[in-house]
Amino acid sequence: MFPNHADPLVTAPAETAILAMLLAESPLSRVELARRTGLSSTAVTKAARPLIDDGYLHELPPERTAPGAGRPANPLTVTSGREFFAGVKISADTLYGTVCDLRARMRTTIHRPLGERDPDSVSALLIDLVAELLDTRPEFRERTRHLGIAVSGDVDRAAGRVRYSVLPGWRDVPLAKAIAGATGLNVTVENDVKALTVTEHWFGEGIGTEYFALVTIGAGIGSGLVVNGRLIAGAYGVAGEMGHIGIDPAGPRCHCGQTGCVEAIASSDAILAAVRGATGREDLDFDGAVLLARGGNPAAREVFARAGRAIGTGIATLVSLLGPERVVVTGEGLDTYDLFGAHIKDAYEAHCFKAAAKCPLTLRPLPWEEWARSAAVIGIQALFP
Amino acid sequence: MFPNHADPLVTAPAETAILAMLLAESPLSRVELARRTGLSSTAVTKAARPLIDDGYLHELPPERTAPGAGRPANPLTVTSGREFFAGVKISADTLYGTVCDLRARMRTTIHRPLGERDPDSVSALLIDLVAELLDTRPEFRERTRHLGIAVSGDVDRAAGRVRYSVLPGWRDVPLAKAIAGATGLNVTVENDVKALTVTEHWFGEGIGTEYFALVTIGAGIGSGLVVNGRLIAGAYGVAGEMGHIGIDPAGPRCHCGQTGCVEAIASSDAILAAVRGATGREDLDFDGAVLLARGGNPAAREVFARAGRAIGTGIATLVSLLGPERVVVTGEGLDTYDLFGAHIKDAYEAHCFKAAAKCPLTLRPLPWEEWARSAAVIGIQALFP
Ligand SMILES: [Zn+2]
Ligand SMILES: [Zn+2]
Repeated sequence: MFPNHADPLVTAPAETAILAMLLAESPLSRVELARRTGLSSTAVTKAARPLIDDGYLHELPPERTAPGAGRPANPLTVTSGREFFAGVKISADTLYGTVCDLRARMRTTIHRPLGERDPDSVSALLIDLVAELLDTRPEFRERTRHLGIAVSGDVDRAAGRVRYSVLPGWRDVPLAKAIAGATGLNVTVENDVKALTVTEHWFGEGIGTEYFALVTIGAGIGSGLVVNGRLIAGAYGVAGEMGHIGIDPAGPRCHCGQTGCVEAIASSDAILAAVRGATGREDLDFDGAVLLARGGNPAAREVFARAGRAIGTGIATLVSLLGPERVVVTGEGLDTYDLFGAHIKDAYEAHCFKAAAKCPLTLRPLPWEEWARSAAVIGIQALFP
Repeated sequence: MFPNHADPLVTAPAETAILAMLLAESPLSRVELARRTGLSSTAVTKAARPLIDDGYLHELPPERTAPGAGRPANPLTVTSGREFFAGVKISADTLYGTVCDLRARMRTTIHRPLGERDPDSVSALLIDLVAELLDTRPEFRERTRHLGIAVSGDVDRAAGRVRYSVLPGWRDVPLAKAIAGATGLNVTVENDVKALTVTEHWFGEGIGTEYFALVTIGAGIGSGLVVNGRLIAGAYGVAGEMGHIGIDPAGPRCHCGQTGCVEAIASSDAILAAVRGATGREDLDFDGAVLLARGGNPAAREVFARAGRAIGTGIATLVSLLGPERVVVTGEGLDTYDLFGAHIKDAYEAHCFKAAAKCPLTLRPLPWEEWARSAAVIGIQALFP
């Protein structure tokens, strides 16, 4: 995060635990908070006090309880509008922006097509977009201190740098520093799949799970993994690369240099190339390939089936190694789920080891704005140590 | 662990941290302990006090320091013989037993061939073996409270039950309770690969790593994974099943019901079956297959090469998903490393994603007694909450 000296809102473990929990689920009684965090009721009350004083939490009126059930409880809840968080997703052709409240609800969204896609041009547009977002309402301008930016590729979050992205000229870009300087906000940059995984774990399907995985399908195949409640980062900054595990020695060559990667079989580019190769129709674009398959062309249908099997095998591998409680599958690739969904599920079930097969796959269509929301959630993380 | 009421030696986080660290590395100065644990020097001194009083730690004479370098420091060290831990590995044909000290050093080892292999017969032999181990020296009998048992297969550690093992008749065996009743010791049962992973992470190649993996090759292909310093258990009790990830859709059928698992290509049984199939020599045993390959038979050599590629691809998959700092490869399969070692390394390098390829593979030959030691380490874990 830049600047580096921005202090977290909470530092003590008890405060951290109850704020993180209340952001995801409010209201909760002190008794419930104590039960879930393992803290004493006294410790919960003590930890909540400064957060109430700062306006981040407030008490609701006592819940109606049965006669004789003891002193009525005042549930605690987050004051959603106490602080706002800006989030921007940089996609291949568009900036998606949002302002979220403390409970990660989107309060406004804006998107702008990218013109030039070099780092300076994108940064300038991003700075304008953030200004526009914050000008939507006076309280956004007043109460927004953090901006999260999500981008695909290789991101060094601690250093605020984009090491590599598919956008032209994006090599080792000190994005956080540049945007922090221009906006006056604390800026955190994160890989987009990791941001989405954190968001889905904290605020979505993954709430309360210790082991959780998110898989994205579409132009790329990615995954984010949560173990013991924390996102896996990898000792060398690489982890969750489900797109580049080898599942077929006879498979096609991948742009990463390896052979038989999931992404080399199941990305939208790989599918298009295979449909062109199988049909001899070099004129096809991806939508054309989809139409051909939906129209019943056997060669095109088999390409999508093979892609589905590759994705299902990749997810089964991830599940057999990590044992997540659930897996969320998302991304624009879901648009063609009719063509490969059954193959994903069949291959998943055929390759999952024993009890790991209990892990359900949840499909989650994902509007582009949700990527911006996940960027804002990376900003919310800055409240924590 | 049985009985369930055995109290841990340490409960406070500070005591837990410094004891765990000193067991792995002693002596360490208080300054060094404070630096590594993030505790203050005062907190280290306070946490060490009850452990010194109980005889688990003691101070060494002050280290010689440069003139004027301030008050000389008394390093802290573990009193290795303050408590002993029995460990037994149940293999397919032998019981391997050991008594270890607090620093996981083997003080004595005994092994006994199994006769009948049903649960009752194995339990009776195990009880005799433990009695013999503890009778080796009076201090073992006096100061051993914990016994760890390691067995391959599906183990419910919390319940002390072996749900499934390849030994005949081993289905849902309440082993910990039976052995605790007969020996008067606190008994923990663990899957053997998990026990070995914990041991190697705590006392071996994995010291100080946050992300670590151990892979075993031989009769089975297994792996244990450590993330954020903790062994991955999996939400459904399944994790680290590198042997049963699918790496080749054209591969052989596996005993687990799937197709193209690493284990279906690279276990010693799979190798033997493939060499028999490729040469038509149904009379071969595994040693014969090895001799044939070492003698230069091209078909036999290719079977070993394919096994090596399968193992290397499996390890690369694990590394691309988890990003461990290092991987230790061990197990009796290392005996034929001359036949597939180069293929393991080649496939690993060919399939590892980008920076993850920095993760070194370490080969670690493993005498059977080391499995017994890892069982004893599971007993040492009982000192902790
Ligand atoms: Zn690849
Ligand atoms: Zn299998």
